[in-house]
Amino acid sequence: METADNLNGVSKEVKPECLPLGPMGAKEGAVSPHSREESLCIFGTGDLGRSLGHRLFQSGYRVVYGSRRPDSCGPVPQGAQVLNHAEAAQSSRIIFLCINREHYSFLQALAPQLNGKVLVDVSNNPEKDMFPEANAVYLQRLLPEAYVVKALNTLSAWGLQNGPSDANRQTFICGDSAEAKQAVSEVCTRLGLSVLDRGGVGASRELEDFPLQLFPMWKLPMRIAVGLSGAFFFYLLIRDVIYTYVYEGKDVSFRILVSLANKVFPIVSLIMLALCYLPGVMAALLQLHRGTKYRRFPDWLDRWMLCRKQMGLVALALASLHVLYTLIIPIRYYVRYRIGAGIISQALKNQTTEFFNILAWRTDSYYSMGVLGFALFILLGITSLPSVSNALSWREFSFIQSKLGYVTLFLCTLHGYLYGWDKFLHLYSYKWYTLPGYMLSLVVPTVVLGLKLLLLLPCVDRRLTRIRRGWEHTPQDPSVQKLLI
Amino acid sequence: METADNLNGVSKEVKPECLPLGPMGAKEGAVSPHSREESLCIFGTGDLGRSLGHRLFQSGYRVVYGSRRPDSCGPVPQGAQVLNHAEAAQSSRIIFLCINREHYSFLQALAPQLNGKVLVDVSNNPEKDMFPEANAVYLQRLLPEAYVVKALNTLSAWGLQNGPSDANRQTFICGDSAEAKQAVSEVCTRLGLSVLDRGGVGASRELEDFPLQLFPMWKLPMRIAVGLSGAFFFYLLIRDVIYTYVYEGKDVSFRILVSLANKVFPIVSLIMLALCYLPGVMAALLQLHRGTKYRRFPDWLDRWMLCRKQMGLVALALASLHVLYTLIIPIRYYVRYRIGAGIISQALKNQTTEFFNILAWRTDSYYSMGVLGFALFILLGITSLPSVSNALSWREFSFIQSKLGYVTLFLCTLHGYLYGWDKFLHLYSYKWYTLPGYMLSLVVPTVVLGLKLLLLLPCVDRRLTRIRRGWEHTPQDPSVQKLLI
Amino acid sequence: METADNLNGVSKEVKPECLPLGPMGAKEGAVSPHSREESLCIFGTGDLGRSLGHRLFQSGYRVVYGSRRPDSCGPVPQGAQVLNHAEAAQSSRIIFLCINREHYSFLQALAPQLNGKVLVDVSNNPEKDMFPEANAVYLQRLLPEAYVVKALNTLSAWGLQNGPSDANRQTFICGDSAEAKQAVSEVCTRLGLSVLDRGGVGASRELEDFPLQLFPMWKLPMRIAVGLSGAFFFYLLIRDVIYTYVYEGKDVSFRILVSLANKVFPIVSLIMLALCYLPGVMAALLQLHRGTKYRRFPDWLDRWMLCRKQMGLVALALASLHVLYTLIIPIRYYVRYRIGAGIISQALKNQTTEFFNILAWRTDSYYSMGVLGFALFILLGITSLPSVSNALSWREFSFIQSKLGYVTLFLCTLHGYLYGWDKFLHLYSYKWYTLPGYMLSLVVPTVVLGLKLLLLLPCVDRRLTRIRRGWEHTPQDPSVQKLLI
Repeated sequence: METADNLNGVSKEVKPECLPLGPMGAKEGAVSPHSREESLCIFGTGDLGRSLGHRLFQSGYRVVYGSRRPDSCGPVPQGAQVLNHAEAAQSSRIIFLCINREHYSFLQALAPQLNGKVLVDVSNNPEKDMFPEANAVYLQRLLPEAYVVKALNTLSAWGLQNGPSDANRQTFICGDSAEAKQAVSEVCTRLGLSVLDRGGVGASRELEDFPLQLFPMWKLPMRIAVGLSGAFFFYLLIRDVIYTYVYEGKDVSFRILVSLANKVFPIVSLIMLALCYLPGVMAALLQLHRGTKYRRFPDWLDRWMLCRKQMGLVALALASLHVLYTLIIPIRYYVRYRIGAGIISQALKNQTTEFFNILAWRTDSYYSMGVLGFALFILLGITSLPSVSNALSWREFSFIQSKLGYVTLFLCTLHGYLYGWDKFLHLYSYKWYTLPGYMLSLVVPTVVLGLKLLLLLPCVDRRLTRIRRGWEHTPQDPSVQKLLI
Repeated sequence: METADNLNGVSKEVKPECLPLGPMGAKEGAVSPHSREESLCIFGTGDLGRSLGHRLFQSGYRVVYGSRRPDSCGPVPQGAQVLNHAEAAQSSRIIFLCINREHYSFLQALAPQLNGKVLVDVSNNPEKDMFPEANAVYLQRLLPEAYVVKALNTLSAWGLQNGPSDANRQTFICGDSAEAKQAVSEVCTRLGLSVLDRGGVGASRELEDFPLQLFPMWKLPMRIAVGLSGAFFFYLLIRDVIYTYVYEGKDVSFRILVSLANKVFPIVSLIMLALCYLPGVMAALLQLHRGTKYRRFPDWLDRWMLCRKQMGLVALALASLHVLYTLIIPIRYYVRYRIGAGIISQALKNQTTEFFNILAWRTDSYYSMGVLGFALFILLGITSLPSVSNALSWREFSFIQSKLGYVTLFLCTLHGYLYGWDKFLHLYSYKWYTLPGYMLSLVVPTVVLGLKLLLLLPCVDRRLTRIRRGWEHTPQDPSVQKLLI
Repeated sequence: METADNLNGVSKEVKPECLPLGPMGAKEGAVSPHSREESLCIFGTGDLGRSLGHRLFQSGYRVVYGSRRPDSCGPVPQGAQVLNHAEAAQSSRIIFLCINREHYSFLQALAPQLNGKVLVDVSNNPEKDMFPEANAVYLQRLLPEAYVVKALNTLSAWGLQNGPSDANRQTFICGDSAEAKQAVSEVCTRLGLSVLDRGGVGASRELEDFPLQLFPMWKLPMRIAVGLSGAFFFYLLIRDVIYTYVYEGKDVSFRILVSLANKVFPIVSLIMLALCYLPGVMAALLQLHRGTKYRRFPDWLDRWMLCRKQMGLVALALASLHVLYTLIIPIRYYVRYRIGAGIISQALKNQTTEFFNILAWRTDSYYSMGVLGFALFILLGITSLPSVSNALSWREFSFIQSKLGYVTLFLCTLHGYLYGWDKFLHLYSYKWYTLPGYMLSLVVPTVVLGLKLLLLLPCVDRRLTRIRRGWEHTPQDPSVQKLLI
């Protein structure tokens, strides 16, 4: 657990012991297999240029800075040369641009020196969509004869200065020339990074947006979670606390912190778990209705389907809170007081209550379903860890997320029904003519499970399978089917 | 958490905005560093060919389809050409075969056009061992002068159509020609996949079996878990529920759901944890007995050793269920009733019971061992996550899985012994002359720990270490030892 | 969960069915695209050489051993040739050295045969710093005209013999020649490993130290955890157990196992969580004081910052133990006895106690903060899993670890304050004039949160942000700022 905000400022002076002092030290320049002191050029001696230069130097490169005022450009890492831009460009095949996008236009004057060079664009913008084109695309347009490669911009300043920490070893790269990308990849690899090629320079926009992104796929699930939690909180506040205050004159506001939270969390969790499976069911119905899979889904359905994983993980987090809140019940003062008071009043009345076998079955089955459902839910969560899902074959992933997923939804829904039991028969459940929270939470899961059952009917399933194998209700040409896999 | 079953059918129409519109758009064909519109050929215009074509087109390739009836082959992605097979083959160095294995024989007629081409076999079979040879091997035999590469077959249809989702970014590749594999790798990389080279075309069988596999290493552990759980369930059902019914006439069947489950789970979990360590101990004894490590273990021992990780994780899942079931004990109706009834009867009799210090020590130590053992067990589980174990050096991994593993087994076994305490002295433990469940669960762990202690004796350990360093009881030639590391 | 210690000794005889029997079997030696039977040379027929030879043979290579006594060198894998060193060297471009470092000097005599060859140094030393130079660097110095590549040394013997298991698929490689590394990488890839290039031969020391490392970053956090736990254990032993024994004559030593542990764990956990955030705050203050970020931090601060992740994870482990110990409270004999005795004494006195609303609020809010803090803590732990943090952008990682991290610290500290409530007003809290444990645990978190609040003051924050963007209190040359990013 690093405290990231303070990392940006941490800097180290270059330690000269990083320079390799092996057998090839002496033969520099000779045609030796070991001459690794390649020269790299950096344009810009600002903070980023300084940091990057330090790091390249530590990794065994010779660093040449290009500056507009080579004689008065401030401190550069020990051992680095500072030349003017034109001279510096000639020293190296690869040039890192540590200058602002606003200054890119000055580079046009250097076009003769930069043609055929690999220009590494490491820039980021403070905001999305500040400019009509991505910085690297703009640069490539300015200098069409140079090989622009976008790289290193997804690293934090800390990662660039001090080498990759746990935060992130991966860096993305893109550019139109495979050789240029190869050359930059080699430098990145020597910096200790693992490089992921993302295609042509057209992908720069994506790379420049990456460092700015803040959980884009989590926004919808988080909004749903916050919205539903808020709504149910006020609903239950009225039913549980205010109702009691109005009708019985008792202040049970202390119930807000644990009892109420422990109703809101499971309700929202169950609804969100069902919302993970609803879009899949709807997509299947849509395909059945359309008779083809070759038509685009509505945008809202697409977006919904893409955030199902995040939706499920938020539901899992809420379910975990529900479990924790449930497990602390017996150590709560209120619970202990109530149980103690009940026992004392029985003892004083000299009576013993009967043991109800049916009640024992009911409560135990209710707890059992909850425990098993939660255990499967945790399993689903574990398999959605990137390194675990990478190790699974598609069939295995599909088995867990779909088959086990529906079992989880079924167990959790059953947990809800067993919790309710026959409460729906009693009038006291409908305070102020409202439904109890647990009933509301069962609507969506019940609908999803019902529709899923419908889709599993052999006649429906057969048709859906055919559609998903590419069959269309009205194929343009029946001969297409011949070469099908 | 994605609901995988519905993903296969999701399709999107090609969005033309994916075409890069950078500076190189105009110069297509010119000798420019940026001309990335490479041409790729796909044989087959069925569902798979259509999906793959869409995707390649979106990634910036020009797609040419080869079809037997180029004029009536049905819809292809916008912008793609359809030619007959021979013409299409000439348009591109790389040809993706999206046709059934049954049609491979037709390709022999195209041998002149396909010689020297890279043929990408993306096929899968619906079942294992349908054919004597792997599809790619068969293809290579049909066309010995082509460069067959097996690739992309491990992706789901969804992954192929819409780019890698969280499910899996990895794709395996194999083939005999390094250059052909390199060329296909580049295409895969541009599709956003990370490629893992698995060697020559002989590895195709493995790759074709991969998408069909459904937790092969988990089968043995799951069977053991299910078998043991079933056996212990009936054993305890007889001892706990039926015995009570027969002798006391009381119906305690409600105990099945929680009380019985909470006996079965820890028993099976402890036995399976011990079964993780038993094969290692047996292998060591076998090596000591044989005096060499250069002889193969019996097959069953090999298979057992290979699924120890899965065995341990199943044991961990059961242990977690045990923990959840234990923690809900105090909120169960039955438990609350019994405690309340006990207190009331004491109160009515006007008596107070004494506090037994020894009982407090015993129960607390029993809980303590359980908590610590479970915490270490969780730690073992976390370090078996692929991304965590990848970050460990071998020495660290070995320290955790072996040293900490035995400590975990020891703590959990001690937990069992402390649970039993002096129950073995009392006759009521042996209902119908059967042993209580916890006693049965302690047999295997005790044997494993005993044998491990034996192996740690200095004289035994020394001999074993020598054997594992390559020493043999009767070496063929003593001079071998000279160059040993 | 593998039991690592026993793996080293497991060996398998070579199974000939691993040889590919595809269409290229017959044409060996012909100019076919499929002739993959490349020849590799191994010097040394000891255990390591034997194991490696087996594995290379299984992966489809022809193996030639170099031995000083080719006629009497003991068993080699089936199908392998044994020649003398000079002849063997000529058979292959790549030579694996499976001999001890002590015998490297003999290789100088073979210099003519080894010049231009790729020498793969797979050696490890039993201890760190046994020799002034790394083995591979020493070898490169002995044979300057050979291409030395360090590889495979980080694998376990098991991994080398039987292919990569779950333990580790990664192998590091370093060397001065890119082509030599590429050639060795290809062999490693065919062995099923994923190769990580670590730069020039100068990095060998790092690679040779890797297999010897045993949680280097965990040493400081573990020492702090053990030290603090020990200190607090004795402190609380005196206050809770010995004090009671001396003044009340009661033996409450059974409290050691659970009650005392459940005080020590949360105290140490909270302090260590605060210690994760303290160095970041201190670094910021130091930078503010110095007016620059371009000066190295003191060594102790550097070391402290580098192990924050580990510190946090140890704190999380202790917090998890605290949660488990807390949740078993209601099933403890001691607790049940005390509650029962309390109820009975009330019943016998014919009295009922009043329900204190304020007490319900206080205890519920205390539990609530604990639950929420723990849930966030778990979230922090999950995002520090390598595969999860790799998937996060820097901004996301920083948001979680820093923003959510401080919220976690705040909630947990509040949990502590609410636990204490008004106990600090009562004299009985200060047994023998000592402070209760929970008060001591709140000191560091309170200081950290206070300093963090100070740093968030707009005027302080502004200055710090400027410093971290490269601004210096007394810049050498104001023109530097011009090209800043």
